[in-house]
Parts: sequence; structure tokens; C-alpha cells
Amino acid sequence: MASSLKSKVAEIIFGTDIPAGRRFDVILIICVVISVIVVLLDSVQRIADQYGFLLRAAEWLFTILFTVEYGLRIYAARKPLHYIFSFFGMVDLLAIAPTYLSLFFPGGQYLVTIRVLRVLRVFRVLKLAPYIKEFDRLITAFKASARRILVFLLAVATLAVLLGSVMYLIEDAQAGFTSIPRSIYWAIVTLTTVGYGDISPQTELGQGVAAVIMIMGYSLIVVPLGLVTAAVSRPPLGKHPVKRCPSCTRQGHDADARFCKHCGARLASSD
Amino acid sequence: MASSLKSKVAEIIFGTDIPAGRRFDVILIICVVISVIVVLLDSVQRIADQYGFLLRAAEWLFTILFTVEYGLRIYAARKPLHYIFSFFGMVDLLAIAPTYLSLFFPGGQYLVTIRVLRVLRVFRVLKLAPYIKEFDRLITAFKASARRILVFLLAVATLAVLLGSVMYLIEDAQAGFTSIPRSIYWAIVTLTTVGYGDISPQTELGQGVAAVIMIMGYSLIVVPLGLVTAAVSRPPLGKHPVKRCPSCTRQGHDADARFCKHCGARLASSD
Amino acid sequence: MASSLKSKVAEIIFGTDIPAGRRFDVILIICVVISVIVVLLDSVQRIADQYGFLLRAAEWLFTILFTVEYGLRIYAARKPLHYIFSFFGMVDLLAIAPTYLSLFFPGGQYLVTIRVLRVLRVFRVLKLAPYIKEFDRLITAFKASARRILVFLLAVATLAVLLGSVMYLIEDAQAGFTSIPRSIYWAIVTLTTVGYGDISPQTELGQGVAAVIMIMGYSLIVVPLGLVTAAVSRPPLGKHPVKRCPSCTRQGHDADARFCKHCGARLASSD
Amino acid sequence: MASSLKSKVAEIIFGTDIPAGRRFDVILIICVVISVIVVLLDSVQRIADQYGFLLRAAEWLFTILFTVEYGLRIYAARKPLHYIFSFFGMVDLLAIAPTYLSLFFPGGQYLVTIRVLRVLRVFRVLKLAPYIKEFDRLITAFKASARRILVFLLAVATLAVLLGSVMYLIEDAQAGFTSIPRSIYWAIVTLTTVGYGDISPQTELGQGVAAVIMIMGYSLIVVPLGLVTAAVSRPPLGKHPVKRCPSCTRQGHDADARFCKHCGARLASSD
Repeated sequence: MASSLKSKVAEIIFGTDIPAGRRFDVILIICVVISVIVVLLDSVQRIADQYGFLLRAAEWLFTILFTVEYGLRIYAARKPLHYIFSFFGMVDLLAIAPTYLSLFFPGGQYLVTIRVLRVLRVFRVLKLAPYIKEFDRLITAFKASARRILVFLLAVATLAVLLGSVMYLIEDAQAGFTSIPRSIYWAIVTLTTVGYGDISPQTELGQGVAAVIMIMGYSLIVVPLGLVTAAVSRPPLGKHPVKRCPSCTRQGHDADARFCKHCGARLASSD
Repeated sequence: MASSLKSKVAEIIFGTDIPAGRRFDVILIICVVISVIVVLLDSVQRIADQYGFLLRAAEWLFTILFTVEYGLRIYAARKPLHYIFSFFGMVDLLAIAPTYLSLFFPGGQYLVTIRVLRVLRVFRVLKLAPYIKEFDRLITAFKASARRILVFLLAVATLAVLLGSVMYLIEDAQAGFTSIPRSIYWAIVTLTTVGYGDISPQTELGQGVAAVIMIMGYSLIVVPLGLVTAAVSRPPLGKHPVKRCPSCTRQGHDADARFCKHCGARLASSD
Repeated sequence: MASSLKSKVAEIIFGTDIPAGRRFDVILIICVVISVIVVLLDSVQRIADQYGFLLRAAEWLFTILFTVEYGLRIYAARKPLHYIFSFFGMVDLLAIAPTYLSLFFPGGQYLVTIRVLRVLRVFRVLKLAPYIKEFDRLITAFKASARRILVFLLAVATLAVLLGSVMYLIEDAQAGFTSIPRSIYWAIVTLTTVGYGDISPQTELGQGVAAVIMIMGYSLIVVPLGLVTAAVSRPPLGKHPVKRCPSCTRQGHDADARFCKHCGARLASSD
Repeated sequence: MASSLKSKVAEIIFGTDIPAGRRFDVILIICVVISVIVVLLDSVQRIADQYGFLLRAAEWLFTILFTVEYGLRIYAARKPLHYIFSFFGMVDLLAIAPTYLSLFFPGGQYLVTIRVLRVLRVFRVLKLAPYIKEFDRLITAFKASARRILVFLLAVATLAVLLGSVMYLIEDAQAGFTSIPRSIYWAIVTLTTVGYGDISPQTELGQGVAAVIMIMGYSLIVVPLGLVTAAVSRPPLGKHPVKRCPSCTRQGHDADARFCKHCGARLASSD
């Protein structure tokens, strides 16, 4: 009977098949979002002064709720240790530990801010069915072009170092170009078209070079875009490389095709 | 005869088939645009002081015109109540109500600003034939990738919360990072490459982290672009809506398919 | 013989087939670029003070050169009036007229700046063969999606008006949101991710709304990108809609195909 | 035996086939990255004051290491002169020369900054196999659309000159539009959506024109994106390099082609 209770709890906490499981997920996400908002508001001096008690009460409420949930997860998990040391297991622990530790080490700004990691718990929502597929596709598209993006980022970093050094030579320290790292920081701010304006060239030559850098940055973004777009929009031929018509031997069939679109022969069932 | 007058009015106001209907649309749009400009100019102190009377006169002129039009629409609509509570019916009402209400509640800044909603009436122009199709395609492309975009936005929001918290720990309050929400605001300003510069990192460590965030934001935009581009440029399956298997009646066949991929029956030759 | 001289001049000035014609184009472009740089430098107070005489001399040199060229073009053109009132004919005239007019109306800043239009003459370079094709393709891609882009811009403009009005209500005049037009200006600066920072929200609510606007702007750019990309990368099926195999009636053949790729039958010769 | 030693050294330094060669590359890159960081830190006044001796020591250590490596490369290269005057040969020399020269010309800021060129040595990593292919693809995509990008940049430059001149006429010198070149600089900052905010329009008319420019810049980026994306995602013709007509030997057939589109001969079934 304990085992049946355990499997019931597991179904609710980890699963999404039964209504209770889905409802649990929705409530959990709402709690997570509110508790994160509490942490955020707590860092605003004006609000912390006025509603300090309320925020602290809410913080403890959520901490206790999450602690109970954490206990239940360990209890219900088939392999408790495996859960504890999993990514989400660590996040779940980091979501509650700082509040308890703050009893012993009061006033620790770092400790308080760690609680923001709670926000990662929202990604449990991705368990909800159709989102997993979309997320996977995103990850796949990224992985497929990871090496290209790496080469691209290496090129951008090198460019930023070189351009930053050039501007360090050209521009005055008064305009903000006081050291090469700072100039590189400026080059990145410019190449990515962020453009804070906290550092900006003042001399004619500097502005000319900056203009070239801007157009470069504006054009550069084209490259990764083209690469990823191509990776994402490529017809997923590679997904069914074995799907070949046994009669006319032609490929390129849709994943859900059961008959050859060219000759009408029956295809072997996919996967 | 009343009925024939009513149908005539309906044809002019709601339809675009006869020249009078098209001309009515064009005049309506011009009136809407001018009346919106009047509202905008009215909010500029210097202009309101100088041309106040003129602006108020124009405002009343357009309000009366739109009121007559609103009355005619209710009169000519086949289902008046249906029209009144439709989206554009509400917009039409909100376009005139504030001016009348301002007689009783003078000086209400909110009341005056609501009249800007008038601008939405411009979208009636989309009734004009070829634009509807384009607009529909835009909406379709968006809907097709809505779930992906949602997952993407969730990831961006989480990233902004985490990065904002990190910068809150690293940077001084003097540089503008006075609270976590403000730091998150900065992270969004940076990730989206807007870069106001009202808050910007001052320490070496902060600038380093900011540089990483910028490059991240610069690369991140690639993801939704790839997704939507793929959705838009996806082989236009809809182009062969008539290509329907005569045997199993299912659609969605490629343009070059000669046999049904579901049941293997011969398809009618395309076009 | 006069006619043969005329046709010779025409060949050099308008044509690109003979080496002399190409050389003329290259020299012309160099002159145009230098003369534009002279105009630019002339507007910099410090340089104008120091090198005023030199700049004025260069200005007159180029004006005389361009006048001679203008005269030759009228002389050599097959239809002189047609040339004079063509787009480039007007540009050629505007490139020289201001300098002569400045003798009678000295110190006219507007007059001087008009000479910058000279820069348009650089586009004569596009006569050089392979660039015309690329330019045409660009124009074609733009035209193909012009209506979509118009609908998109209309939506962006409406959004900017609505968001600007909302921010006008939310934010203080002290933060720079002094009128609705100014708030709309801010909304456009933010939606396009330019982000000057001359106007930026100061209240928590304002910053929250601004964050939403930024993410909107960041996502919005996806739409036109997808549309144009799709228009550019679409296989040019529409170019040969009539290219249909007479034997198996299938379409989708390449422009250079002479035989059906499906059944091997000879295709009708394209265009 | 000397020859065998030489070929062994060459294998380690230039090759990546044996483990020692790969290990050498990895160590080299780490050294290069650290030595660049040393140069960067050296330019920060505060750090240079505190850790000056340490930085100078590290600088000399890396210089001697790179000198030894440079010597070995000359020794091991099959054609030493060819290596010395190659791109990477020059970079290798520029990576060490400034430090030696600083003995004779102390304090030369230019001399010191040249050492940043060392960062280019990181690209030796691209020798590592799979990256070369990706890099080549990037370069190919760029080259394929080079002419289009050139036409596009020419158009952007012309636009910037014209828009800058217009703003020079419209806006006050007080807002920062003191000369045409400076206004052009502003136009580029705005068109590329960088938006420093060091110069920004103050008048209503100026802000209106600026808004149009921003939307233009926002839309403009679409063009090169579409071009490059199309170039990258173009149906991978190279995917069927073996699909060659047995009769006329021409390539470039579609993946689903069964007959040669040039001569009508039957093609071998794909793959």
C-alpha cells in the first residue's frame, strides 16, 4: 500500500498523464512565478522598506511549500539519489536552501540573490507535451550549427580585439578609450549594435572608423542568420535516409508517407 | 424602399465592390489619419497654446462626422447588435465617446488619449482586397510558429532574470543597478540590442559580463528568425488545396506527387 | 563626319562596350567621389577655415569638368530633351547648378548642401554590366514583397502610435515624454532597437512596459525578414509557368531544362 | 638524420595528424590567448601600476617562446622564404618583433599595441580538421553574395550621405549636427540601429525625419539577410556531385530527376 501511495505521488508530481498531475504542474508554476516576483520586489529598497514583513512572510510560505515538495520528490522518485544530483534536483535544492541559510548568515546579498535560480523551475512546464518537441527542435537547430556559430564567434571576438586596439590608438582617453580592454568592450557594444553611448568616438578619424565598424557589425549578423536559417529550413531529408521506394528506388518521401508518391508502391513502415 | 436604401447604404459603407464603396473607404481613411494627427498635435503644449481653437474645432468636426458614420453603420448593419459588440464596433464607439464625455469631465488626460485608438480604424483599409490576403498570410506565419516563439520568449525572459541578478551582484548601485528588477530591465535593454545607456556597467568585470550578454543577444535573434523564416518559406502546401486523394480523400500532397502517399491511389495530374 | 564624332562621343560617354567608355566611367566615378568629399569637408568649420581656398578651387575645377561633361552629354544624346528631363539628367544639372548660383546668392547653406546630390551620380557605375543584374534582382525582391512590407509598416506605425500614447500616460514629462508625438518618437526609437537614450523611462511601470515593447520590437523584425527571405529564396517557379512536359504534363522544370526530368520527353524551348 | 629530425619537427609544428601535433596546437593556442590577455591588461593603468613587473616578465617569456617557435618554423618549413612571406609568417614575426624593438624605442604605445595582432595566430586552430570546412563554407557563402552586398553597401552609403545632409539642414548645430560628415556619422549610427545617443535630433521635424530613417534602417537589414540566406540555403547542388548524365556528362541535376534535363538520357537512379 505504501508502494501504491508512492506511485500515486510520483504520478502526480512527475507525470502529466492524469488531470491531477497536470493541475499540480500548473499550480507549481504559479507558485514559482510568484515566489520569484517576491524575491525581485524584495531587492527594491522602497518596496522592501514598506512591505518588508509581507515579503518575508510570503518568502517563508513558499520556502516551506517547496521544501515539502522537495521531500515528496525524494520520497517518490524511483532513484532518489539520481534525482537529488540531477540538474532539476540541484535547482530544487538551491530554491530553498538560501532562505534557511539566511537564518544563520543574515543579510547576505549573495545568498538572497541565489534564490532567483528558482526561475529555472519554470522550465518544468516544458514537460507539458507539445512544448518538448518545439524545444527539442530549437536545441537540434542550434546543435546542427554549433560549430559554425563557434567559428563565427571566434571571428567576431578576434575582430573586436583588433578593432578595439585600433580605436585605442586613434581616440583620446578623454572619450572613454582609456585602455585596450575598455576599447574592446566598446567595439563589442558597437558591433552588436547595442550602442550604449557611454563611450563614443569624438575625433573625425575615430568617427570614420566607427562608421565602418557599425556597417561591419550590421552586415556581420547576416552570416549566422543565414547559417541557422539554412539549418532549420532544410527539408529534413536526413531524418529518413532509409525511406526509399522498394519499387522505383526514389527517396525524399515525407515522414508520414506510406506509399511512394512517384510510383504508388507501398513503402516500408517508417521507424 | 427603406430596405433598398438600407442595402444601398450598407453597400457603400461595408462593401468595396462598387466605386462609391471604395471612394467612401478612401475618404474615411483620410479623415481618420487627419483626426489622429489632430489628437497628437493637441498634446504638444506649444501647438495647443497657439492653435487651440482650430484643433478643438477640427476635433468636433471629425467627432460629428464619425458619429454620423457610426449611426449609419448601426442602421445599415444586418445585425446591429452584432456590429456594436464586434471589435471594430467597439473601436468606432471609442473613437467618438471621449470627445462627448470631455464635456462633462473636462481636462481628463486619459480621456483625451483614448481617442488615439482611432488609429485602429485605419485597418478597415485592409478590407481592400489584395491586402487581406497578405495580412492573413502574415497572421498564418505567426500562428504557425506561435508555440516556438513562446518557448523562445520564455527562454529569453529566464535569461534576462538570471543575467540581471548576476549583474546586480557584480555592479555598483551607483552605475544604476539599484535593484534586481532594474538590473533585469537593463538585461532586456542589452539582450534586445536597444542599449539606451541610461544604465551601463562601470567595472571591468561588469563590462566583461555585459560583452558576453551582448554577443548572446546578438546571436539569440537568430533563433526566432530561423523559425519564422522556415515557417514562411516552407513549401506552400496550401498551393494545391485541390490535390485530394480520390480514394482516401486526404490532402497535403507534394506538388510533384503522382500517387497518394497514404493509400497509394493514383492522384489526378496537378493543375 | 560630325555624326561620326557624335556617335564616337556617345559611345565613350554612354557606352561601356569599348575600353575608352569603361575608362571614362571609372574616371567619372573618381571625380564624383572626390567632389563629394570636397563638399563634405567644406561643411566642417575647422577645415573650411584652414583650407578654404583649396576647397573652393577644387569645387570650381569639378564644376567646370562636370559642366563640360553635361554639355557633351546633351550634344551626344540621341534625344537631348529626353536626356535632360531624365532622372540622371536632372541629377547632372543639380550637380553643377548650385555652384554657379552661389555667385549670385552667396552663403546659401541650402544651395551648398544640394551639391551633395552629386553622390547619386555614382550609380552610373551600375551601368557596368554584372551589377545591373544584381541591382535588378534586389529591386525585384523588394517589389515582390512590397505589399507585405506596406502592411507590416502600417502595423508597426499603428503599434508605435498606440505604445507611444500608453507611455505618455504612464511616464512623467520630466523623463522626456512631454507630448504624444515625442512619445511616439521614443516608441519608434525603441521598437527599431536604435535606443538613443535621450528619452528613457524612469518609473518602474514605465520600464516594465518598455521591456515588453523592446521584446516586441526584437521579435517584430522577424516578420519582414521571413517575408523577404521567402520571396528571394523561392525557387523561381513563376518564371516558367508554361514550361510543362508535353508527355507527362508535369511542371517544375529548371529554366535551362530542355528535356523533362521525369519522363525524358523533349520540352518546348523556353521563351 | 638531420632531415628526419626536420620532418619530425615539421610534422609536430605544421601537421595535425599525429597526437603530438594536435597537442602542440592546443598548447600554442593557450599561450597565444594568455599572451594577448597580458597585452590587454598591460594597457590598463591601474593593473600596469600594480603588476607591472609580472606582466613584463610574462611578456618576455612568451616572446622568447614564440621566437623559438618562429625559428623552428623557418627551420622546418620546406620553403622557408615562402613561409616567412606568407600571411601567417608575417603575423608570427609581428607577434615578437615589437617586444624586441621596445628595447630600443621605449614607451612606444603604437609598438606595444601591434602585439595585439598576435590574436590572429589563434586562427591556426582552424587547421584542426572539421573547422576548416565550416570556415570555407562561410567564406563561400560570402563570396557568392559579395557583389550583391557591394551594391547594397553602396546604396546604404549613398543613403547615409543624403540623409545626413538633410539632417544637417534641418537640425541645429547645438544638437550635435555641426557639419555634414558628422551628420552622416549620425545617419550611419541610426541606420545600423546602433544609436549611441551622443548626437540626437531635438526639433520636432528632425525627430520625424529620424523616425523615418530608423524604420528605413530597420527594414533595410532585411535585404542583405534575404540575399545571403538565399545563397546559403540554395538547394545543395553539391549534394549530388556524382549525378552526372552518362550521355552528355553534364551535372547539376535535381535530386528527383530521372532523365537528363539537357539531353533526355536516362540518369542512373540517385544514390
